[in-house]
Amino acid sequence: MISQEQLKNILGNIPAPGKIRTLEKMNILRDVKLTGNQLDVTLANTASGELAQTWLKGAVTNVAQKKAGISDVNVSFIDVKPAEMNDIKTIIAVMSGKGGVGKSLVTGLTAIALRRKGFEVGILDADITGPSIPKMFGINTRPSGSDTGILPVLSSSEIEIISVNLFLPGEEEAVIWRGPMISNAITQFWQDVVWGKLDYLIIDLPPGTADAPLTVLQKLPVNGIVMVFTPQNLTTMIVRKAINMAKVMKKPIVGVVENMSYLYLPEIDKKMNVFGESKGQTMADLTGTPLLAQIPIDPELARLCDHGEIEQYRAAFVDTLAESIGKIDFPPSAVLPA
Amino acid sequence: MISQEQLKNILGNIPAPGKIRTLEKMNILRDVKLTGNQLDVTLANTASGELAQTWLKGAVTNVAQKKAGISDVNVSFIDVKPAEMNDIKTIIAVMSGKGGVGKSLVTGLTAIALRRKGFEVGILDADITGPSIPKMFGINTRPSGSDTGILPVLSSSEIEIISVNLFLPGEEEAVIWRGPMISNAITQFWQDVVWGKLDYLIIDLPPGTADAPLTVLQKLPVNGIVMVFTPQNLTTMIVRKAINMAKVMKKPIVGVVENMSYLYLPEIDKKMNVFGESKGQTMADLTGTPLLAQIPIDPELARLCDHGEIEQYRAAFVDTLAESIGKIDFPPSAVLPA
Repeated sequence: MISQEQLKNILGNIPAPGKIRTLEKMNILRDVKLTGNQLDVTLANTASGELAQTWLKGAVTNVAQKKAGISDVNVSFIDVKPAEMNDIKTIIAVMSGKGGVGKSLVTGLTAIALRRKGFEVGILDADITGPSIPKMFGINTRPSGSDTGILPVLSSSEIEIISVNLFLPGEEEAVIWRGPMISNAITQFWQDVVWGKLDYLIIDLPPGTADAPLTVLQKLPVNGIVMVFTPQNLTTMIVRKAINMAKVMKKPIVGVVENMSYLYLPEIDKKMNVFGESKGQTMADLTGTPLLAQIPIDPELARLCDHGEIEQYRAAFVDTLAESIGKIDFPPSAVLPA
Repeated sequence: MISQEQLKNILGNIPAPGKIRTLEKMNILRDVKLTGNQLDVTLANTASGELAQTWLKGAVTNVAQKKAGISDVNVSFIDVKPAEMNDIKTIIAVMSGKGGVGKSLVTGLTAIALRRKGFEVGILDADITGPSIPKMFGINTRPSGSDTGILPVLSSSEIEIISVNLFLPGEEEAVIWRGPMISNAITQFWQDVVWGKLDYLIIDLPPGTADAPLTVLQKLPVNGIVMVFTPQNLTTMIVRKAINMAKVMKKPIVGVVENMSYLYLPEIDKKMNVFGESKGQTMADLTGTPLLAQIPIDPELARLCDHGEIEQYRAAFVDTLAESIGKIDFPPSAVLPA
């Protein structure tokens, strides 16, 4: 005879509608109760319309019959708010103050690095007016869901992704929104999206110190900030502004990443400091946090990003990035989920 | 006997307080009337406090006596709003949608190129949360002025510059403002700054399609937009958003500039497409406007920018940039100065 716990595992492995991760990982399976030969299963109705619920009911009944020989199956749905479905261990915000220093690249590579180590990872692209993440990952599927919630889109290595670009009729459509609308969109990406169970949610912040980064730092339970910069003095000046903003918002910086650190020229076996001397150690000292990575200018990386194949990129620094993040002792977040 | 017109020229050459350009160029000299041996001079009191007005009165009286032997001099001041002092032939907004593609660099180089041709040029740094212009030009003077107006700061080649960074206690101070405050700051940079007579005012827009670029395009009489991009597909996707925004706002794009177009390696005499194949012609075709410049990745340029010495940069493309802009037939602006 099958145990209740075994049944829970079996049912938890059913994929959620929209081919997003399993019922267990999405936190949709809320309760499993086996009384004799009668099985009562409670699912969250979050983000699923009537069609999806009918499908789910059938899938659960089928699996219970086929894998455990149980024919008396009751499937009921309960209302759970998306935010209550979310069980995220660590939220990292990737910030820079200055645009174009590679925040999205660092967000993407961090997610990939952690995913390769076997963690469950999501990316919240909070760069509402200049979203780069979907293009990098070659994603253009519209997120599914219902009026009770939205499901993220899965990348090929199963990283959950939400970005405003996935909701637009065309990726080149401009989002001409003023501050409050942008803040609302970001809040929605947090409150109305079913991220489910994740080890890490990486947030790609927009540049600057205006509405969007403010909203994320105020309203989302961010555990730590990774600060991105390039060797240019001009950039580090503006990144220092972002560091000051983090201080004002009382959010801890947990590490720094230098992008466009150097260009390696195989023809002459030389590292070229295209944008000046490395500021890696300076920024690490300034923030009192580890230098998590120094990312070179790499035409191959640029090519993969342009072709939506960033997940195919392999480099030693990507592996050490994941290890360095693994060593961070993230503080608990002061903000409670909305 | 000296004529009224000659006197006007002589008085117009007096430098305005704060060592900004001359009274004529700042539009401070409003009227000169010579009746027999009596001279009546009317000056705008805009942006000058009591001390500056006393100094101006003395300077005008002195010059009239010494250079024209006129001793009966009446200097009076009239109220003129800063915006009414401004007589600007062409306003160009430098835009990109994506941050870090080199908007500020293009703004700076465009201003320098036009200035070298003898034009009177100003830069309005509308990138409130990530201002780069003052650092590039090595400027950290606080703008002078009074409660009736603000005077821009002059660069070493006499380009007028206004940036939020010039008003902050420290350049690393973060401007943690929400949209409306940012819009107000930009509107002030237009309404309360005495730009005087200029051939070109170049506006460095912040990235994105949110508040700051919106405000500039709605409230300032921009004649044309120069769109900046880099060869990365990712960038051009986001720049296309900006192009769509310009269409929605009914502001004409007058030219495109490709930054980080290539890296020249003198050791092997090779141009390297670090960020992919050039998109110059594609973007020119897309917007139906000329490709004004292709700026290479140049460590020397990066170094000069970092040291506040961008005005020392010499390259052939800078000269052709000015020539290309000179050929543009700018449409009149639809928005009236506030």
